[in-house]
Amino acid sequence: MEKFKAAIVGYGNIGRFVLDALLEAPDFTVAGIVRRSLDNTPAELASYKVVTDIRELGKVDVAILCTPTREVEKYAEVYLAEGINTVDSYDIHTSIADLRSNLDKVARKAGTVAIISAGWDPGSDSVVRTLLQAAAPKGITYTNFGPGMSMGHTVCVKSKPGVKNALSMTIPLGTGIHRRMVYVELEDGARLEDVAKAVKEDPYFASDETHVMAVSSVDEVKDMGHGVNMVRKGVSGRTQNQRFEFNMSINNPALTAQILVAVARASFKQAPGAYTMIEIPVIDLLPGDREELIRHLV
Amino acid sequence: MEKFKAAIVGYGNIGRFVLDALLEAPDFTVAGIVRRSLDNTPAELASYKVVTDIRELGKVDVAILCTPTREVEKYAEVYLAEGINTVDSYDIHTSIADLRSNLDKVARKAGTVAIISAGWDPGSDSVVRTLLQAAAPKGITYTNFGPGMSMGHTVCVKSKPGVKNALSMTIPLGTGIHRRMVYVELEDGARLEDVAKAVKEDPYFASDETHVMAVSSVDEVKDMGHGVNMVRKGVSGRTQNQRFEFNMSINNPALTAQILVAVARASFKQAPGAYTMIEIPVIDLLPGDREELIRHLV
Repeated sequence: MEKFKAAIVGYGNIGRFVLDALLEAPDFTVAGIVRRSLDNTPAELASYKVVTDIRELGKVDVAILCTPTREVEKYAEVYLAEGINTVDSYDIHTSIADLRSNLDKVARKAGTVAIISAGWDPGSDSVVRTLLQAAAPKGITYTNFGPGMSMGHTVCVKSKPGVKNALSMTIPLGTGIHRRMVYVELEDGARLEDVAKAVKEDPYFASDETHVMAVSSVDEVKDMGHGVNMVRKGVSGRTQNQRFEFNMSINNPALTAQILVAVARASFKQAPGAYTMIEIPVIDLLPGDREELIRHLV
Repeated sequence: MEKFKAAIVGYGNIGRFVLDALLEAPDFTVAGIVRRSLDNTPAELASYKVVTDIRELGKVDVAILCTPTREVEKYAEVYLAEGINTVDSYDIHTSIADLRSNLDKVARKAGTVAIISAGWDPGSDSVVRTLLQAAAPKGITYTNFGPGMSMGHTVCVKSKPGVKNALSMTIPLGTGIHRRMVYVELEDGARLEDVAKAVKEDPYFASDETHVMAVSSVDEVKDMGHGVNMVRKGVSGRTQNQRFEFNMSINNPALTAQILVAVARASFKQAPGAYTMIEIPVIDLLPGDREELIRHLV
């Protein structure tokens, strides 16, 4: 079997786990890793091509974008135009439709495929949300996150004066309401009250119950576990009180990486264009014979 | 907006709830109801065309098959060939792939679409099972059913000598193991021991813990509620112990009917052929503007 050649673009938290997922996948080979610089290449990459320009890797079928979310569009536009499919876990909910519409034009013109916002939320959660909406069209779906680390909120706290290191944990209180537990390592001379005030006034935190605490080491309280509890109570036809619940307790970057590899595979089964996960059949996420999958999973 | 014209074929438990779901859907009209006989037409159908041959209904876009599962293929073959899309909730797991392959030929030739085995299991559960397999490729998914009435097991018990009426409840014991609680109304002179023996020896029950009890009225203990608890613990990439859980507590025929209407809608967005639910994008299950759905659900 000819295997798909995948390039990992960006080798941070997600990129490392994508390498794991590619090595365990039966239908992929690692074409190489694209990084901003060749300095400080981690030891585990010794047997791979590490480059700063994807063209140095020869033929690449799909680029798995593990860059910061704001750089996704820039890379995707270039790669798609060069004939390489792209997948990403772009997570700024309010701009997903615009990203899709822009990349759709580029991909259709080049005959390539982009699958965007493919992590767990947005991503696999979006598929469940859509399915539940179809199962009980009237009603409300609450997506409760955590307990787990929020990357966006953590970055926000780190940007405040007096903060050496930080961790913002998301605690679910139900019906989509969250508490923010913020742990900070203070710089010498910084006062906790000042930092707490700055954090609580920031738009990221202003509408949530927020607690700010000083700790001696953020590293010691940090874990990569995360969770979701999605709940829908709704109406099927004219029958009220249909109840659905979806729960996950997962390693965050490991799941994101696994989903990225699954959509990389699915990208080869779609017509040219850009897609979110709710627009592709779930069977396309899996390797193996289609009839066999139907026999086992339906 | 032009609405889809749907015919309900079979007006039993599921058919009644399909009528509800069609009436609540913004994009469907009821073309009519197809029944084996025009005798005993229920009062609530007074304002609808009730016929014995679908051709009497004029233009029909999609036939929603609510017949006994073993009659699905016969109706689907005829309707698909006549230019009518079909959807069904065919539920004999071992024959789904064969039904799909047969109807696929008919549908491709006629330029129509069949979506088969579209209820909740097989159906929406199949979508979740496939998604979880993609999220953590190594591991086991357990689908635990109930507590709820099993139609197949109930029919089996009713066929035993000495049984006037019966109800077989499925009780989940975890890891896909189920207990069968069987309630029987005995005929005059029938002995519970004999009925219990016949039930427990039947292949339907032989491998499960089964309890058979006599009741004075089966109707008094019957409810249409059902449930699912699907659990997967697996590996994403090389990260163990990723945990997922999907729960439902639902009115069984109401959910089946709602899913049937959702796939009826989706049938108009697929290329000619036959599909199971895991082969169609979940977004196609919903009415409304695609961009708008992406903004709200992804």
